[in-house]
Amino acid sequence: SKSNEPQKPPPVVHYYMNNATQTRDPAGNQEKVLILTPLARFYQEYWDNLIKITYPHDLISLGYIIPKTKEGNAAYAALQSQVTKTQSGPKNKRFASVTILRQDTENPLQTQLESERHKMENQKARRAAMAKARNSLLFTTLGPTTSWVMWLDADIVEFPATIIQDLADYDAPIIAPNCFQRYYDEKKKAMDIRPYDYNNWIDSPTAKELAAKMGKDDILLEGYAEMPTYRSLMAMMYDQSADRATKVKLDGVGGAALLVKADVHRDGAMFPPFSFYHLIETEGFAKMAHRLNWDSYGLPNYLVYHYNE
Amino acid sequence: SKSNEPQKPPPVVHYYMNNATQTRDPAGNQEKVLILTPLARFYQEYWDNLIKITYPHDLISLGYIIPKTKEGNAAYAALQSQVTKTQSGPKNKRFASVTILRQDTENPLQTQLESERHKMENQKARRAAMAKARNSLLFTTLGPTTSWVMWLDADIVEFPATIIQDLADYDAPIIAPNCFQRYYDEKKKAMDIRPYDYNNWIDSPTAKELAAKMGKDDILLEGYAEMPTYRSLMAMMYDQSADRATKVKLDGVGGAALLVKADVHRDGAMFPPFSFYHLIETEGFAKMAHRLNWDSYGLPNYLVYHYNE
Ligand SMILES: Nc1nc2c(ncn2[C@@H]2O[C@H](COP(=O)(O)OP(=O)(O)O)[C@@H](O)[C@H]2O)c(=O)[nH]1
Ligand SMILES: Nc1nc2c(ncn2[C@@H]2O[C@H](COP(=O)(O)OP(=O)(O)O)[C@@H](O)[C@H]2O)c(=O)[nH]1
Ligand SMILES: [Mn+2]
Ligand SMILES: [Mn+2]
Repeated sequence: SKSNEPQKPPPVVHYYMNNATQTRDPAGNQEKVLILTPLARFYQEYWDNLIKITYPHDLISLGYIIPKTKEGNAAYAALQSQVTKTQSGPKNKRFASVTILRQDTENPLQTQLESERHKMENQKARRAAMAKARNSLLFTTLGPTTSWVMWLDADIVEFPATIIQDLADYDAPIIAPNCFQRYYDEKKKAMDIRPYDYNNWIDSPTAKELAAKMGKDDILLEGYAEMPTYRSLMAMMYDQSADRATKVKLDGVGGAALLVKADVHRDGAMFPPFSFYHLIETEGFAKMAHRLNWDSYGLPNYLVYHYNE
Repeated sequence: SKSNEPQKPPPVVHYYMNNATQTRDPAGNQEKVLILTPLARFYQEYWDNLIKITYPHDLISLGYIIPKTKEGNAAYAALQSQVTKTQSGPKNKRFASVTILRQDTENPLQTQLESERHKMENQKARRAAMAKARNSLLFTTLGPTTSWVMWLDADIVEFPATIIQDLADYDAPIIAPNCFQRYYDEKKKAMDIRPYDYNNWIDSPTAKELAAKMGKDDILLEGYAEMPTYRSLMAMMYDQSADRATKVKLDGVGGAALLVKADVHRDGAMFPPFSFYHLIETEGFAKMAHRLNWDSYGLPNYLVYHYNE
């Protein structure tokens, strides 16, 4: 038998965690970035912008989690073909690695239509499912050498090619650009832009009072007329004429586009799929990070754009 | 330049998460087990028992996190030499992989002496640091193909070689053996055993009342006369004459030895380094898992032994 012959031992790897720095010059310091995208629908514009990212691609790993639905199957096929194309294209455009997870849980909503997704009674189950998907993706792809995690939803169809360097330059533990949407203004007969993501906010006394009166499993949701919170929404702070570099401190964040220092996640910050201080998913994540002494910031005048269905 | 030549594309990996099953016959189903050990001191007996584990070693990955202290350096050197020996020894005894992380944070306590470690005023900072160490280790080593996570402290110096199969056979999301300690009984002039780990418990009305009156950042600790909780401690349920298979439902668990289905962690269950329902670290983990609809169990009559300093 060959089993007693000396063979090359299986991999033993040693990591000094302080080598995975998180600096204002990530590319200069060879810092690895993990771009994580929960993916239910594939948009070509997302991919086209992704491959235009100027951060060195050999320092970028991509991670996807895709639901086991018919729509998920289509998204998976579309993603696959783009990945194959990019990873066999010019060497300097290839990403370091790509991980694609197929979820084992069912999607709690049958349809992905925006009108269904955003119904208030559907939000808790939906956001809990999204939180679990994000956690699964995060827990299984974050490595000991990852410096940054860039959360980027699949329906973010327009963002600057320098987004990683731009956001990292703030040296913030957690930082979110402002997520807008292009639309056709019927009155003006012209394209215009409008706020899309209401999950980036600064807390308010009203929201705190609402939370104090809630049952322990109840959650506060943002952007519903039935439950005005009077939080200061970053989406409403956009000022075209102001400095693009303006930074505000946030208490809740969205996950549409979000740069996170890997140490924040490594300390344990995840996306609570349950009511955490009456918050859930990405908003609960900001709160949990805060409990771990990591602050969240937002850039009201730095825009990324969400697909318009 | 060679950069335009077609080359082998970087790894693109696809995982179907429902392939990472967690069954009562883990070895039969080729389920991968990740053994995670936070390590401040190395004990040869721990390693001697680890390599005697009968679960197929090619399905086992080991993960360590070691503090950046003088004591940690010594533990690292001792671990290294044993790892090298095992991984270059007989092929069927080698583990699939070994990951060793050196922490970048300082240990909040100068000494690791049990008397210092267990002082009540030191517990919160210490357990918060332990929780972060466990989270770092977990978040960076858990992979998409991991089926089970076996938490095993480095000072668990005696445990059955069949521990993985034995615990998995209960098909429980989270399951803890009872952690005892051997000692010399001066009166009997003979070796005897006594309970060691008080973190495996069933909640009590007294503990709930204490918690209800606490400040939001305060934590309940178990095993301190100053703060009697009247919880039912699994450590006190051991009955030598009873069935070794007896299983009880737990509300708090310890991390000395603990088998966890990987899906529990993937859903987001981690070790809270902050007060979570007035619980912290492994006890907080059981509570968080419970919020994610995963139950914890314990085996009062299945013993593992902690080192006696
Ligand atoms: N893996 C996974 N991804 C999903 C699921 N539902 C939505 N997504 C993706 O998660 C991100 C956010 O979801 P989306 O429905 O756009 O949220 P909204 O824009 O806040 O309404 C997008 O990238 C979706 O493609 C799901 O059930 N599983
Ligand atoms: N990485 C790391 N491991 C630690 C640290 N302190 C203790 N450990 C290890 O964590 C486990 C539990 O700690 P221990 O001090 O034995 O806890 P106790 O038995 O509950 O008092 C043991 O395996 C220790 O070797 C630390 O600061 N960092
Ligand atoms: Mn969206
Ligand atoms: Mn110990």
